[in-house]
Amino acid sequence: MTINGAQSLIRTLVGAGVDVCFANPGTSEMHFVAALDAVPEMRAVLGLFEGVVTGAADGYARIAGRPAATLLHLGPGLGNGLANLHNARRAHSPIVNVIGDHATYHKRYDAPLESDIEAVAGSLNGWVRRSARTEDVGADAADAIAAAQEPPGKIATLILPADVSWGDGGRIAAPVPVAGPRPADPAAVRRIAKVLTGGEPVALLIGGAACREAGLLAAGRIAAATGARLFAETFPARLERGAGLPAVERIAYLVESAVQQLDGIRHLIVAGAKPPVSFFAYPNLPSSLVPEGAEVHVLADAGEDVTHALEDLADLVAAHTRPTLQDAVRPEPPSGPLTWQNWTDVIGALLPEGAIVADESNTSGLLLPQATAGAPRHDVLTLTGGAIGYGMPVATGAAVAAPDRPVVTLQSDGSALYTISALWTQARENLDVTTVLLNNRAYAILRLELQRVGAQAGGPKAGELFDLSRPDIDFVKIAEGMGVPATRATTAEELAEQFRRALAEPGPHLIDAIVPPLL
Amino acid sequence: MTINGAQSLIRTLVGAGVDVCFANPGTSEMHFVAALDAVPEMRAVLGLFEGVVTGAADGYARIAGRPAATLLHLGPGLGNGLANLHNARRAHSPIVNVIGDHATYHKRYDAPLESDIEAVAGSLNGWVRRSARTEDVGADAADAIAAAQEPPGKIATLILPADVSWGDGGRIAAPVPVAGPRPADPAAVRRIAKVLTGGEPVALLIGGAACREAGLLAAGRIAAATGARLFAETFPARLERGAGLPAVERIAYLVESAVQQLDGIRHLIVAGAKPPVSFFAYPNLPSSLVPEGAEVHVLADAGEDVTHALEDLADLVAAHTRPTLQDAVRPEPPSGPLTWQNWTDVIGALLPEGAIVADESNTSGLLLPQATAGAPRHDVLTLTGGAIGYGMPVATGAAVAAPDRPVVTLQSDGSALYTISALWTQARENLDVTTVLLNNRAYAILRLELQRVGAQAGGPKAGELFDLSRPDIDFVKIAEGMGVPATRATTAEELAEQFRRALAEPGPHLIDAIVPPLL
Repeated sequence: MTINGAQSLIRTLVGAGVDVCFANPGTSEMHFVAALDAVPEMRAVLGLFEGVVTGAADGYARIAGRPAATLLHLGPGLGNGLANLHNARRAHSPIVNVIGDHATYHKRYDAPLESDIEAVAGSLNGWVRRSARTEDVGADAADAIAAAQEPPGKIATLILPADVSWGDGGRIAAPVPVAGPRPADPAAVRRIAKVLTGGEPVALLIGGAACREAGLLAAGRIAAATGARLFAETFPARLERGAGLPAVERIAYLVESAVQQLDGIRHLIVAGAKPPVSFFAYPNLPSSLVPEGAEVHVLADAGEDVTHALEDLADLVAAHTRPTLQDAVRPEPPSGPLTWQNWTDVIGALLPEGAIVADESNTSGLLLPQATAGAPRHDVLTLTGGAIGYGMPVATGAAVAAPDRPVVTLQSDGSALYTISALWTQARENLDVTTVLLNNRAYAILRLELQRVGAQAGGPKAGELFDLSRPDIDFVKIAEGMGVPATRATTAEELAEQFRRALAEPGPHLIDAIVPPLL
Repeated sequence: MTINGAQSLIRTLVGAGVDVCFANPGTSEMHFVAALDAVPEMRAVLGLFEGVVTGAADGYARIAGRPAATLLHLGPGLGNGLANLHNARRAHSPIVNVIGDHATYHKRYDAPLESDIEAVAGSLNGWVRRSARTEDVGADAADAIAAAQEPPGKIATLILPADVSWGDGGRIAAPVPVAGPRPADPAAVRRIAKVLTGGEPVALLIGGAACREAGLLAAGRIAAATGARLFAETFPARLERGAGLPAVERIAYLVESAVQQLDGIRHLIVAGAKPPVSFFAYPNLPSSLVPEGAEVHVLADAGEDVTHALEDLADLVAAHTRPTLQDAVRPEPPSGPLTWQNWTDVIGALLPEGAIVADESNTSGLLLPQATAGAPRHDVLTLTGGAIGYGMPVATGAAVAAPDRPVVTLQSDGSALYTISALWTQARENLDVTTVLLNNRAYAILRLELQRVGAQAGGPKAGELFDLSRPDIDFVKIAEGMGVPATRATTAEELAEQFRRALAEPGPHLIDAIVPPLL
């Protein structure tokens, strides 16, 4: 039986374990869509905007540990998905983008949607290929899947011209083997062991795969045995934490705080993380957060097997030491009007076992890490690339990857509007996602940043650009409009009661939590 | 008094007549924001998503005839704005993007938002420059404004590193003169005059600036005198039409219909338009819509003065002929349940004088052109680049450009979700925009396209990807959530009554018109 290019693509994807496709298709993707019914193993999840699609693929990859496919429509579709692909790139999430393009012979006519897909995809520093012939599509897809999974994970983009997709003669390709992460340099492990036992102040900064259980336990042993200060990168893709795991402080977003965290160290060991840098440049603040005079030691970079490197290092310096583990302690449930200081205690008091937390709470979430430190074991996903509008899409994909785990989105209002239709996908797929919408009616972070960059005090016109009131945004109505049941909380008691109820009921819920801004 | 780079930029913009900035700023743009209060001539309009910002700049340019600025945040901000910049590029809308970037010295640290802005901006085939020094910012901005306005208009992107923006020593630059469109070749005019009077079947296809009153009147004279069939391009940026102007049929989106429109012609004269091509490629349908054997004659390309070329041509072939003008005729107000066939008659019956219609009604709008042909004079703005999610943002910008004109958005549901927060900006700015949301609960066009590409009949999984029910989207709630009063219409009478009321009241309104899909 002869199959077309699209069919060979889907069967190759499924054969390599890529069995979820987040899709926002157009005409050039119709043959892919038509082929879906012939391959029951492939699950297609519709997003009503490409930023939802790519964010969901990111969340899926962070939890499933393998790529989903996206289905996008030419350059504009990729453009709409670019911000969350940027975050995914920074998270090292493996993703296979399938981008339909005009038929090969149609491109020279410069039809309205003609666009430079390669230029836009190229900006992601990943893998990009255009399938030239129908018989190549399967092999190209297999290469794309392998490229996406090459440690530590990247964005692979396969451009599929419509005629290559609809042409007959497709060939299903076998999976291309993917090597695991390279082993770290044993000499580096030994050298760093000496640094750790040399008596000078040391900090150990973990990131990437080291933020999972095995890496955390090894890092915890090292810290317990040597007194090294233990930190995680500011925005880990996935950080396991909670009672029973070593507690790890993240490097602060605010340079001023980060400088304090690292004050006095002479050696900074980085394990799966990059040496810390300021998120933005500020006049009179450093770009590099490595203290002056401190030496940086790379235990393992992102492409290396950081977990084993940490375990080897722990065996050298902490052979008989157990890590200090976080106690199971939760905050007292707070009461009274919601504030940015107390809502996090509600989450800390009630976060269920095994939760996945997609955190885009931004300024409202300043106290979140400490409030949830002793909650039951959970994963935190963070805004790795700083492109806002990531929280609800990533939660959507995480829920697809882990249907048996509760997913909690902590979502600030300003960022929510970028990809709000993720709620609709959550409703359609009946995903168990509870969104706590931190509604401070402001881009509060920009009020803060305006001060930090040393700008002349903004007047009323500047203030208008940070103000999300006039009109107030009613997220209860918006969520209901998208098919997601929603309530509003203005007190800690209301938030607790609504959060508990949302977690108990299956399917998505949103709580519009009215929280005054930090400033 | 010394000023910083941001101040020199804003003052240069204002000095050149660019006095509206659609903005979605971040930290790297804070100095621009802070400088706004010092320059009262600059109006800043906040969008809660960059696709709203860039679409608004497009709509503004189409109506005002001059560029607005946008303020965007690094590569991800540009990415979010890319789809509507793609449409703007196809519309030849002049736009000046100001994109903040990291400080020059911060880029090497590869901070989370570090991104390849040039690569993404370069995909727009416009003008791109990075300001290297504070003292250059004013001159760079003046060049950007001139580049944007170079006929027929393009996207100019100025990348502004944070330290170049906050540095002292900014210099305000005088406007750079911009030449008007090049005159068309007089020999071409004479040659085409002979074609028109040669007795063979001719079609005259107008586009770009020729779709405005002067061009239409000249084209109408030519058609009346010579019997040439008169068409406008499928997706004009701005088409003036209605009672008292020559009526011009647009080339159909459906290849099958376009082929019929042009059937039998021997000569195709293009004036400010490109020879027509199919929007997508389809198996067994042509890409070029120029009939076989027909000769194409270029009267003026997009960068040439097409209006004068048409007038010169009319003087040669139609010296004493008046154009046939459209009578003032409106459809009878329909009654009964809304259908895709009758809702357009409601619009035709009630469209107010001087309206600006942002049309993204897609399949629901098939009968719109004929229903509104004899309505009072109005402008229609169309989806020039095929990147959906354009309607509400473009309407927003058009309303900012023309505060004294009623703006009507005809918005299909599937496309609406891409840039829905345009409604919030309409509410904040109290813009007089009436959105008729054609809610057919489907990507109906994709159902059509699935058949047209000759794909094997899609089964239930394919159908799911075109279905916007499960859950139904409640646009009344979503609009109210964004601060826009909204109602729902299920009958023609309700739509008429609500449309009339929305037009009579100032500020934005939305009508969720439940219209069954075409198929």
